[in-house]
Amino acid sequence: MGIGKRFVVKLVFLAGCWHVATGSEKPNIVVFLVDDMGWMDSSVPFCDAEMPRNQWFHTPNMERLAKQGMLFTNAYATSVCTPTRVSLMTGMNAAHHRVTNWTSRPRDIPSDFDSETNPLKTPVWNYNGFSPVADIEHTVYGTPLPALLADAGYFTIHVGKAHFAAAGTPGASPYNMGFVVNKSGNMAGMPQSYYGEQNYGNIEGKTTDIAIHDLTEYYGTSTYLTEAITREALKALDYPVKTKTPFFLYMAHYAVHLPLHEDPRFVQRFYDAGLDSGAAKFSSMVASMDHSLGELMDYLEEKGIADETLILFFSDNGGHSINTRKGGKAHTQNLPLKEGKGSLHEGGIRVPMIAKWPGHVKAGSREHRSVIVEDFFPTLLEVAGNKGAKTIQRVDGRSFMPLLKGTHAVDTSRALIWHYPNKWKKEDFATIDYLSAIRKGEWKLIYHMAEGKLSLYHLATDMGEVNDIAGKHPDKVRELTRLLTDKLKGWNSPMPSFKEGGQQVPWPDEVVINNE
Amino acid sequence: MGIGKRFVVKLVFLAGCWHVATGSEKPNIVVFLVDDMGWMDSSVPFCDAEMPRNQWFHTPNMERLAKQGMLFTNAYATSVCTPTRVSLMTGMNAAHHRVTNWTSRPRDIPSDFDSETNPLKTPVWNYNGFSPVADIEHTVYGTPLPALLADAGYFTIHVGKAHFAAAGTPGASPYNMGFVVNKSGNMAGMPQSYYGEQNYGNIEGKTTDIAIHDLTEYYGTSTYLTEAITREALKALDYPVKTKTPFFLYMAHYAVHLPLHEDPRFVQRFYDAGLDSGAAKFSSMVASMDHSLGELMDYLEEKGIADETLILFFSDNGGHSINTRKGGKAHTQNLPLKEGKGSLHEGGIRVPMIAKWPGHVKAGSREHRSVIVEDFFPTLLEVAGNKGAKTIQRVDGRSFMPLLKGTHAVDTSRALIWHYPNKWKKEDFATIDYLSAIRKGEWKLIYHMAEGKLSLYHLATDMGEVNDIAGKHPDKVRELTRLLTDKLKGWNSPMPSFKEGGQQVPWPDEVVINNE
Repeated sequence: MGIGKRFVVKLVFLAGCWHVATGSEKPNIVVFLVDDMGWMDSSVPFCDAEMPRNQWFHTPNMERLAKQGMLFTNAYATSVCTPTRVSLMTGMNAAHHRVTNWTSRPRDIPSDFDSETNPLKTPVWNYNGFSPVADIEHTVYGTPLPALLADAGYFTIHVGKAHFAAAGTPGASPYNMGFVVNKSGNMAGMPQSYYGEQNYGNIEGKTTDIAIHDLTEYYGTSTYLTEAITREALKALDYPVKTKTPFFLYMAHYAVHLPLHEDPRFVQRFYDAGLDSGAAKFSSMVASMDHSLGELMDYLEEKGIADETLILFFSDNGGHSINTRKGGKAHTQNLPLKEGKGSLHEGGIRVPMIAKWPGHVKAGSREHRSVIVEDFFPTLLEVAGNKGAKTIQRVDGRSFMPLLKGTHAVDTSRALIWHYPNKWKKEDFATIDYLSAIRKGEWKLIYHMAEGKLSLYHLATDMGEVNDIAGKHPDKVRELTRLLTDKLKGWNSPMPSFKEGGQQVPWPDEVVINNE
Repeated sequence: MGIGKRFVVKLVFLAGCWHVATGSEKPNIVVFLVDDMGWMDSSVPFCDAEMPRNQWFHTPNMERLAKQGMLFTNAYATSVCTPTRVSLMTGMNAAHHRVTNWTSRPRDIPSDFDSETNPLKTPVWNYNGFSPVADIEHTVYGTPLPALLADAGYFTIHVGKAHFAAAGTPGASPYNMGFVVNKSGNMAGMPQSYYGEQNYGNIEGKTTDIAIHDLTEYYGTSTYLTEAITREALKALDYPVKTKTPFFLYMAHYAVHLPLHEDPRFVQRFYDAGLDSGAAKFSSMVASMDHSLGELMDYLEEKGIADETLILFFSDNGGHSINTRKGGKAHTQNLPLKEGKGSLHEGGIRVPMIAKWPGHVKAGSREHRSVIVEDFFPTLLEVAGNKGAKTIQRVDGRSFMPLLKGTHAVDTSRALIWHYPNKWKKEDFATIDYLSAIRKGEWKLIYHMAEGKLSLYHLATDMGEVNDIAGKHPDKVRELTRLLTDKLKGWNSPMPSFKEGGQQVPWPDEVVINNE
C-alpha cells in the first residue's frame, strides 16, 4: 500500500450481530471556495500570458497549489453567488434549478432590481433558493452533495459563507444539507464587517440579520474574519483527523466580497507598490484569503494527510467590476475578459480553479478543457466512491475525473449553459441584465433578451468577446440558439416578459440573427 | 451481552500499522440543563410532600423521567448561572475557580452592581470566566470536561446556552472546550427573544451581541426557541447514532430564563387554571422545556438507544424570585425554600435533579444524599471510562456514581461550599449579596459578610431556614466556620473589603458568633 492511500476497516459488533463495512480508499476533500474573486485577481496567471494585474497581486499559496496540482484555464461558475452555490450542492445548471439570482436574507423577497427604463419584467424564479425539504415555496428541492458524501462515510464540515437559501427555509442551515458541523454559515451573502474589533458586524446600528455567527471568541480582537474562519476550519478538522475519518471540508470564504475592508496584516505591501487605496485594500483581502489557503495546506502537511487530500480551489463568480471601488476603471477590472460579476461575458463567469490531488492529478499541469460548477457534484461523488448515488434532482453536471486523471479525450458535443433572466442592480447594464448564453467548443453565443439580440464570439481567438461575429456565422448561431432553446425549454427555465404587452421574450431560436 | 450494552471494536489499518482500539462499554450521556428553574417549578415534587406549586406546573416528561430514574432531593448548583456552568466544565467549586458571578458579554467588565448603601467593595474575581487556554486575564484555566469525554471516544455536542466566558476569550466558544458540534452557544446568558417571528432577537434595534446564533432557518416562523434548539439537538445526534459512536449531548436550554415570553403552544392551560399572566407565561415556558425533554426521550427510544443512555436533568440555579414577574409574591416563589436565584439560601441553590440510566439507576428511586454541581465532572469521567484523567485544575467534585448505583454508604465528612462575594443587583438584598455558606450533614451555616453575621440552620428540621440557631450551637458554628475558612483560604477565594478603611472582611472563623 503506497503513501497517500488509506484503508479503513471497521468491524462493529452490535447486539450479537457483526456488521462489516468493507474497506475503501477515500481521499479527504476540500472545496476552497472564494467569493467574488476574478480570473485575474491573483499572481497565478490563468491566462496563457502573464498580465499586469497578475504582477500586483500576491498569492504565493495559490502558486504553491498550482505547482502541486492542475490549473484550469476554462473553469466556469455562474455570474452571481447563490446560483453557483446551489449548482455545487445539486449538480444542476442554474437554468434548471431556477435559482438564477442571489437569494435575499428574508424569505419570499426576490432580490431583483428594476428601473423605469427597463423594458422587461423579471420572471418568477426560485428566489428562496435551495431546499433539502420538499414543498417549500420558490425553492428547488434536491438531494444535497454533503448528504451523499456523508452517506459515503465522510465527516462533513461547512465553514464560512453558505447563502444557499433565504432565512426561514430549511436551506438556510447547512445542518439540513448533510453537514455535521457548520461554523458561521447561514443566509447571509456577505459580512457587515471583516473586523473582530467590530464583532464582524454584530454591533448596535448594523443590520443584525446578516451578521456573521459563531465567532464570538474573536470579538473585540484584531482577528480578521478570513483568519478567524480559517482557525475555525482547522479546529473542525481535528475530529476527523483524530478519528481517521475521511472528511469533506467546504471552506467557503466571505472574502473577497465587499465591504472593502483591508486586512492590516497584508495591505502595506500594496500601498508600497503604488496601488491606489481601493486596489491596495482589495489586494490585501486577496492576500489574506491566500494566507488562509496556506495555513490549510500547512495543516494538512503537518498532520501527514496532504497526500491523501483533494483540494479544489474555486471562485463563485467573476470579479466585481461595475465601479471603481476596487481601483481601476469600471467594467475593465477583469481584462482581458469582458465585464465582471453579474454578466455572462467571460469576466462574470470564468473563474480561477486549481485542483491538487497527489498521485492522481499531475503537478504543475494546465487544463484547457472546460468545466462548469455543476460538474463538482458528480466529480466529488465519484471521488468519494458514491458514483451514481440516487438523487431527487436530475443532475446536469459531468464528472471531470477524466480531466483530473489526465485523459486526453475531448468531448466535442458538450455545451455549457448560463442563464440570467434577472436585473442585477438599479442601474441598467446591457452587458449584464437579462442574458442567456451557451458555449460549445470555442464558440459562445449570448442572447440579450431585452434587445432581442444574439452575439457570437470565438473564444480561442477572441477571449475578450470584442468581435461579435454572429452575422458571419448564421449556421453556428442557428445551432447554438437551437441547443440553448432546447435546454431552456426542457428545464422550464424562467424567462422575462415585456412590461408592455406582457408576452414572454422570444426563445433564443425565435430571434432573427442580426445582420442576416 | 444484554440489552442496553454496546461493544464497539474498531480496527484501523493505517500505512502498514494496525491500531486496535479495544472495545469498552460506554453509555451515551445527556446533560439536560435548564436555566433558572426553581426546585418547586414542576409537577414532580422534589420536596417530600407535594406542594400547591407542584399542582399548577405541568411537566409530564419530568414525571416520566423520574419514574424511570432517580430523583435527587438534595442536589445543589451555585446561585447564579456562570459559576454553575464553569463548575460543570471543570469539576471545581466556585470559590476555587473564582468565577463567582455571571460573566458579562464583553470581556474585562465585571457584572457586579453597587449601591450607595452597600458598605462593601466587591473583590476581583475571574470575571472573564473559564478558559481552556492559559494566560487569559481574569479567567480560570483548566481542562474542560467535553475534551476529556472526547478523549474517551465520545462525540461531543453543545446545544443552546454556553455562557462559560466573556466574548473575546477562548471560553466564549464551546469549540474550544472539546465540543465537536456547537449550535447556538456563545457568551450570551439569555436570549433577546424566544420567538422565531422576532428572529430570536436578531432584529434591528435589539442588542445584537446577545442575539442567538445558528437558527436562521426558523427566522420568521412560529418556532419557539426551546423547540428550535431541540430540533437542532436531535439533528446533531444523527451522526453519532448513525456511526454508533457514544455521544455526550450537553443540552443547555435558554429556558426558563427571562424574558418572560410565553410559549403559545402551552400557555392556555395555565390561563384556564386561573393563574395570573406572569405565572401562566412562566408555566408555559416550563411546559415547553418539558416538551423538549419528552422529544429527546422519544428520539432515544425510537433509535433504540434509550437503554444505553444516561440522562441527567439539572437546573443551573434556583428560581428567580426577587419580583412578581413570574407571579406570586417577591422572595416567596420557591417556598418552602427560602429566597431564590442569587441567594445561598436553599431557594437559590437547591435545584431539580433527575438521573435516568436503565440497568444502572433504580427506576422510581429517590436519593436524599447531597450532590453538588462540581460532582458532575468526576461522575461523567467515571461513566465514560476516563476516571482519573489528568487535568490542569485540581478537581473538587466527587463522583456520585455510588449514589447512582444505589450503595448505602453515607459520607459524613463531606462539606459543601458556596461562595458569593458579589452584589447581584442594584438594590441591596441582605439574604442574597455577599454570602458564603457551608453544608455538612444536615447543618448549614451562612456567613453574611456585609453584616459580619453567622446563621446556622438544621435543614432536616428546618428546610426553610427560618430558625437561625447559631446562638444555640456554638460548637457546630465553630466547626463549620473553621471548615469554611480553611477551604476559602486554601482556594484563595476572593473576599470583599470594606469601602471604609479598605480592609478585607473577616474570615468566617474570625466572626464572633451572634448571641455568644
